[in-house]
Amino acid sequence: MKTVDLNCDLGESFGAYTLGLDKDILPYIASANIACGFHASDPMVMAHTVAEAEKNNVAIGAHPGFYDLMGFGRRNMTISADEARNYIKYQIGALSAFSKTGKLHHVKPHGALYNMASTDYDLAKAICEGIREVDDELILYGLANSQLIRAAQDTGLSYAQEVFADRNYNDDGTLVHRQHEDALITDEDRAVDRVVQMVEEGKVKSVTGKWINLQPDTACVHGDNPKAVQFATRIHKALTEKKGHYCTSYWQT
Amino acid sequence: MKTVDLNCDLGESFGAYTLGLDKDILPYIASANIACGFHASDPMVMAHTVAEAEKNNVAIGAHPGFYDLMGFGRRNMTISADEARNYIKYQIGALSAFSKTGKLHHVKPHGALYNMASTDYDLAKAICEGIREVDDELILYGLANSQLIRAAQDTGLSYAQEVFADRNYNDDGTLVHRQHEDALITDEDRAVDRVVQMVEEGKVKSVTGKWINLQPDTACVHGDNPKAVQFATRIHKALTEKKGHYCTSYWQT
Amino acid sequence: MKTVDLNCDLGESFGAYTLGLDKDILPYIASANIACGFHASDPMVMAHTVAEAEKNNVAIGAHPGFYDLMGFGRRNMTISADEARNYIKYQIGALSAFSKTGKLHHVKPHGALYNMASTDYDLAKAICEGIREVDDELILYGLANSQLIRAAQDTGLSYAQEVFADRNYNDDGTLVHRQHEDALITDEDRAVDRVVQMVEEGKVKSVTGKWINLQPDTACVHGDNPKAVQFATRIHKALTEKKGHYCTSYWQT
Amino acid sequence: MKTVDLNCDLGESFGAYTLGLDKDILPYIASANIACGFHASDPMVMAHTVAEAEKNNVAIGAHPGFYDLMGFGRRNMTISADEARNYIKYQIGALSAFSKTGKLHHVKPHGALYNMASTDYDLAKAICEGIREVDDELILYGLANSQLIRAAQDTGLSYAQEVFADRNYNDDGTLVHRQHEDALITDEDRAVDRVVQMVEEGKVKSVTGKWINLQPDTACVHGDNPKAVQFATRIHKALTEKKGHYCTSYWQT
Repeated sequence: MKTVDLNCDLGESFGAYTLGLDKDILPYIASANIACGFHASDPMVMAHTVAEAEKNNVAIGAHPGFYDLMGFGRRNMTISADEARNYIKYQIGALSAFSKTGKLHHVKPHGALYNMASTDYDLAKAICEGIREVDDELILYGLANSQLIRAAQDTGLSYAQEVFADRNYNDDGTLVHRQHEDALITDEDRAVDRVVQMVEEGKVKSVTGKWINLQPDTACVHGDNPKAVQFATRIHKALTEKKGHYCTSYWQT
Repeated sequence: MKTVDLNCDLGESFGAYTLGLDKDILPYIASANIACGFHASDPMVMAHTVAEAEKNNVAIGAHPGFYDLMGFGRRNMTISADEARNYIKYQIGALSAFSKTGKLHHVKPHGALYNMASTDYDLAKAICEGIREVDDELILYGLANSQLIRAAQDTGLSYAQEVFADRNYNDDGTLVHRQHEDALITDEDRAVDRVVQMVEEGKVKSVTGKWINLQPDTACVHGDNPKAVQFATRIHKALTEKKGHYCTSYWQT
Repeated sequence: MKTVDLNCDLGESFGAYTLGLDKDILPYIASANIACGFHASDPMVMAHTVAEAEKNNVAIGAHPGFYDLMGFGRRNMTISADEARNYIKYQIGALSAFSKTGKLHHVKPHGALYNMASTDYDLAKAICEGIREVDDELILYGLANSQLIRAAQDTGLSYAQEVFADRNYNDDGTLVHRQHEDALITDEDRAVDRVVQMVEEGKVKSVTGKWINLQPDTACVHGDNPKAVQFATRIHKALTEKKGHYCTSYWQT
Repeated sequence: MKTVDLNCDLGESFGAYTLGLDKDILPYIASANIACGFHASDPMVMAHTVAEAEKNNVAIGAHPGFYDLMGFGRRNMTISADEARNYIKYQIGALSAFSKTGKLHHVKPHGALYNMASTDYDLAKAICEGIREVDDELILYGLANSQLIRAAQDTGLSYAQEVFADRNYNDDGTLVHRQHEDALITDEDRAVDRVVQMVEEGKVKSVTGKWINLQPDTACVHGDNPKAVQFATRIHKALTEKKGHYCTSYWQT
């Protein structure tokens, strides 16, 4: 019996600034990636977001990013392996303090850090080592087939291979960059079908038409606008209706 | 048999900026208050400082401050009780991630936060509650006889009453503000004698000549210049030579 | 013939975070107070906001605040007079770089800095001196009858006495603090009537019923939600319909 | 008659952190590149540094960098052309506010921004456009023969071709990266000879032994440690002793 996790990036508000429809998306996801104050969020937002996630029985993960609030962690930065390791540890520790158990479920790098580590093995390895040093039971969420997954395997870290419902893939399995016009899949029906196909059949068609093999453990949905929330609920419904595909936390399987 | 702890603020460097003679002071102290990235420090400095403290068998504590790097956490800010609670939790969690055990020994608020909480019970209580929520075995280091100590007692938190070797006291037991000319005790012999008297006899003479009763559990020394380090070694020597006054971590007693 | 200026705080977005309905409010105001990157905003937002204001022939002023993005500049901080002077200069200079002429029209301190300087003469004077040192033709916008106005007079700086349509006043002319339940005037009709009375008759009733004399040069309106924009348009209409009360920039009178 | 300018990066302290021997180096340089609060410095440091430079009749330039205080602006970041333009404008404006005349002499990008723009024409052009938009009389200081110089020529901006006394060059005229072991020229005699040769003969030998043609308008010296200051004074002396090579500001020639 196969299960798949639905995850969403949450807690990206900051101070007087509100971002995301966290409350609306929480009932439809199984795990939350919560910002840790580097690319977004602050201690007040973190306390509130963790409490809401716990209330909804959603598994709590850290969503560490670059220390670049102005760029929302979406700009590449050349940091050393040691910096990556320690930035990850800091953010995991900070978020842990707000969880009732003092423990987290998973770690998913954010934005540019996620994308860079998907193709840069040394960076990916430093991230995995940082995670392990804090808590070796943490699960890494990384792009399916990427260097993040390879590094998790090499360092003995548990991992969940992640797929994206609304993003196009290059032939090598990386995501088409947001700056390209065909980065996003805007046709909702097609996006839902793709997620189901990825989960059921373990494959997805790249932007050039090539089949890519995937073994999705978790699918990422967004909650940053009413349409995204509506879309997430459709994916949730499509997956839970499939026999054997429980939309549940990877952790709880 | 009485023991007293010697503590020092460490790990206050940041990025390209170096501050403090951490390595020189470590052999003479029993517990370190390590900055957590708000008023000073960054993840690289924290990783390095925790490792050095562990190597020297010095007890590791968090030194959380205001989110004011530009002012080094020395400027009063009016934050809410909820903000205080969550700022404290965030910083404790972040530092914990760098310790081998994932646990810390104590928490000592920094700078303006320490001073404000010494006289503001609500702020002190929020700090103590925040500490407890992360780990109820943590020890609060607070100004002897202050609201921080009262709040620790009320919230059931362990605490260590702190005294200062090189600072003058007001009649009410608060420290003479740094902006006053007689804030500091510059005569080294007198400062050493005061610490010994505070520890041995449980009293210190205020700036107006009034005796203040104290029960010192820990004494703070500084390591920000060669003279401060030399001074700390003298205090260390004076206390360890006294029969029964081991300069050791409060935790380890 | 009397004129009155309508001003609004603009450009308070930051990075990925959007705040305020700047475009909607611009047609109804004569001068804009634009955030400078300390309590809100960043260089991209500043460039955009200044361009929009210039397009609408709205006078451009700096809206410098505390260096406290997390608290949106609304938390009191104890800074020295020298710090106040230099923080003000920095922010004025930074905003000036985005204006076509390289010059600004006015400076209005933001949030907690505004409130603190309204009653703290030394702080107010440091602010006024900082403004003068950058450009002695700049106009200070300050709370009517406050220490900011007194300091502007003493330093020879031009000033505009500011009133608030939707805020209640204490007997001493300061604003009722936002934490009090009667801080805001929520009845729109009453608020519009108050502004007209302040402008026409030079008086306003305090929260205890006492009359306060005022000489309003400018009235502040808000643009942070659809209702606020609608309210601002009503005030704009009420004032422009009054014979002789042109809702125009104080500068252009 | 040929002149050459000696420039130095100054004002890189921040808050409680002190960096650089600014006072010691000021007598030996003709122009100062002053940090603007992004990669280093704050308004207090800027006010002080500008005042010291003015006292020494040293030409004042902005030294804008990436918004990365933690990395001291030495880490590559992928920012857009628009971001580069506006970050530059912000920092120039901010520094200008502290100068007596409200005007600056030159702009030299800092660290990673300087290096990236040396080979990335689009980034270099955005920087030059940003400078021009604030003040078209400003002089760009850029690596000799680099894309920064080409962009200055294309945008009609005055420029000074910069050479480095203590750095090795690649065959293409870029600097050998700091991470390479032969990045620095540590033999003081050789470094002084190189500067003189670059100025007198317009050439320098690359790290592989190839001659590179240069037309140096300004040479960069460092003031971050006693040895660097001593070295700068030697270069100053060597150049001023050469007939016709006045160590003076490019601006004042």
